[in-house]
Amino acid sequence: MSFPVVGVVGGGQLARMMAGPAIELGVTLRVLAKEPAESAAQVVPGTVVDDETDLEALRRFARGCDVLTFDHEQVPTEHLEALEAEGFAVRPGSAALVHAQDKGVMRERLTALGVPCPRWRLVDGIEALRGFGDEIGWPVVLKTTRGGYDGRGVRLVEEADEAADWFARGGRLLVEERVDYNRELAVIVARSPHGQAAVYPVVETVQVDGVCREVFAPAEISEDHALAAQRAALDIAEGLGVTGILAVEMFDTRAGVLVNELAMRPHNSGHWTIEGARTSQFEQHLRAVLDLPLGETRMTAPRVAMSNVLGGEIAEMYPGYLHCFAHDPGVRIHMYGKHVRPGRKVGHVTTVGDDAADVRARAVHAAAFLRGDIDE
Amino acid sequence: MSFPVVGVVGGGQLARMMAGPAIELGVTLRVLAKEPAESAAQVVPGTVVDDETDLEALRRFARGCDVLTFDHEQVPTEHLEALEAEGFAVRPGSAALVHAQDKGVMRERLTALGVPCPRWRLVDGIEALRGFGDEIGWPVVLKTTRGGYDGRGVRLVEEADEAADWFARGGRLLVEERVDYNRELAVIVARSPHGQAAVYPVVETVQVDGVCREVFAPAEISEDHALAAQRAALDIAEGLGVTGILAVEMFDTRAGVLVNELAMRPHNSGHWTIEGARTSQFEQHLRAVLDLPLGETRMTAPRVAMSNVLGGEIAEMYPGYLHCFAHDPGVRIHMYGKHVRPGRKVGHVTTVGDDAADVRARAVHAAAFLRGDIDE
Repeated sequence: MSFPVVGVVGGGQLARMMAGPAIELGVTLRVLAKEPAESAAQVVPGTVVDDETDLEALRRFARGCDVLTFDHEQVPTEHLEALEAEGFAVRPGSAALVHAQDKGVMRERLTALGVPCPRWRLVDGIEALRGFGDEIGWPVVLKTTRGGYDGRGVRLVEEADEAADWFARGGRLLVEERVDYNRELAVIVARSPHGQAAVYPVVETVQVDGVCREVFAPAEISEDHALAAQRAALDIAEGLGVTGILAVEMFDTRAGVLVNELAMRPHNSGHWTIEGARTSQFEQHLRAVLDLPLGETRMTAPRVAMSNVLGGEIAEMYPGYLHCFAHDPGVRIHMYGKHVRPGRKVGHVTTVGDDAADVRARAVHAAAFLRGDIDE
Repeated sequence: MSFPVVGVVGGGQLARMMAGPAIELGVTLRVLAKEPAESAAQVVPGTVVDDETDLEALRRFARGCDVLTFDHEQVPTEHLEALEAEGFAVRPGSAALVHAQDKGVMRERLTALGVPCPRWRLVDGIEALRGFGDEIGWPVVLKTTRGGYDGRGVRLVEEADEAADWFARGGRLLVEERVDYNRELAVIVARSPHGQAAVYPVVETVQVDGVCREVFAPAEISEDHALAAQRAALDIAEGLGVTGILAVEMFDTRAGVLVNELAMRPHNSGHWTIEGARTSQFEQHLRAVLDLPLGETRMTAPRVAMSNVLGGEIAEMYPGYLHCFAHDPGVRIHMYGKHVRPGRKVGHVTTVGDDAADVRARAVHAAAFLRGDIDE
């Protein structure tokens, strides 16, 4: 057995951030990207540019890889089933991944597993939506079952008639109670085909308009809630047969934690692990999909903060490095090679230290400076 | 100013280990390699395969880069002078780099700077060698002034006549006293064109047959000796006008520290910084040659150990990952994509922790297992 080839479907920043750990492990990374200028395609030799929604293109790509994994959840489930039937190693497998692709399937399965969720229902029209809202109270959260991310495919509905446009497209929608939460949490867990699992500390995530802005590790919550959150993430990883990284986004409520969303790949809520944990989520994902024993998840410092750099007024972020690094020799900047567009995630910054308020302020400052919100 | 392109002359593991940090910083790395299968060439897109000893090849490569730096010191000094005269940014510059290329020039300059060195002399024949040895005592250490590394170009001489073969090649040789030392030390310092410098903790290095085998951070020496070692490294960086990483290898003697060798690039004695310091030497080197403010050098744990994986009996090292990672979830393995040959540096492992003996034992164990010296 020589060094294996890991193929990543999708050329975004998650694939890009797997590149460094793959280089260090001596594992070959291959990327299937939509276009040659994509984030990961810029930095990974031999990137294949092809249509990831075409089964034959996926098959061609998979033939050059020992294991196939993902940068996102947009690959058609039926294509993954076909590849598995042909003997390709797909990790996570289609039977697990569908829970991150289809929120209706996810809710049904988590409920069957006994994982605490917000109250939910799959509804096929305005009458059914009205019935749910009248029963549990308005407003409610309406979601498309597939295709949503970063706040897309999710809306708050005050009364049933508002949703006529979405129902007009056909198909079922997922409706959920609007949860009254104290904060949003996330748990990253890795699981290997062997069944070994490793869980990271629970983090607090700050979302603005459905987009992750900041992550603070560890979350300042009770030990009971933290353990319940980690338990839920481990139960989901085991119950769904996840391989690789699973990110579980949760609400922290007075009554306990409720699962909001799942992702089966390295996730924005785990970027802090690059500096903040003994093994980053990107190395851990590679180890998990390769069925290697998992690495230590403990933190490298008592407090870690991550702030996303969203596109703002400034098109060129590199000149900002001078001030950011001079201002704070401890800040670490990560850029994804993406053109700046307002609101687009183009990078992130991380700080580590002993004091929660200090690391937060430093990370928020650096990200704000890079995007041009502040000038000193 | 958009994201710059850093060109690295040389395709070895040092260039390879710059790739991950360059990806995260969003800085484009280009590599000039001797052959397409070289360590860095495997992982850096757009690697140029050409003759690094040919000025026109260097010039072609430099035209596509904002700054030129190095994986090794083998590029002819006169070519670098020519590139500088043409306006290319070469970092470190030829006037600094020559001190890492020519040990005679190095000794003359360090002595002029008042940096403590072993007693030395440049000798042009057997008589001059005998005069030095008779004066300071036999045996002595004889070195070629150029081209040596990993123990090559260095020999212990018991009496002058033994060295006839080296003198027969012509040119001067460097002769030094054999130093009676307690341990070998190394200090990594980074310096930017602006003159900012940042120094890492002093480490102990363990050399076997002239090849670095282990590095332990921090070195267990008195605070006086540690400060003197850091001071010497900073003085050398400033005195020689180094840009980028400077590695200073030293002897720790009863009387104080003496400088042994210099390298002007990331160095084996700094590999521990990938996990063990807030900013790795590879990111620091990129920041320094780009004249960005330097990053924090403090350690991420009280004790760090690095052990080189040298080629041994086992041709395929990947299967050993299973045992190493299962045995120690905290060990980090770095492989360079090089074919295994006996004694060749093909990778390294790093451990971090609270206890010096523990991290040493873990690192040594993992490296020994990977090379096949032990089977459990």
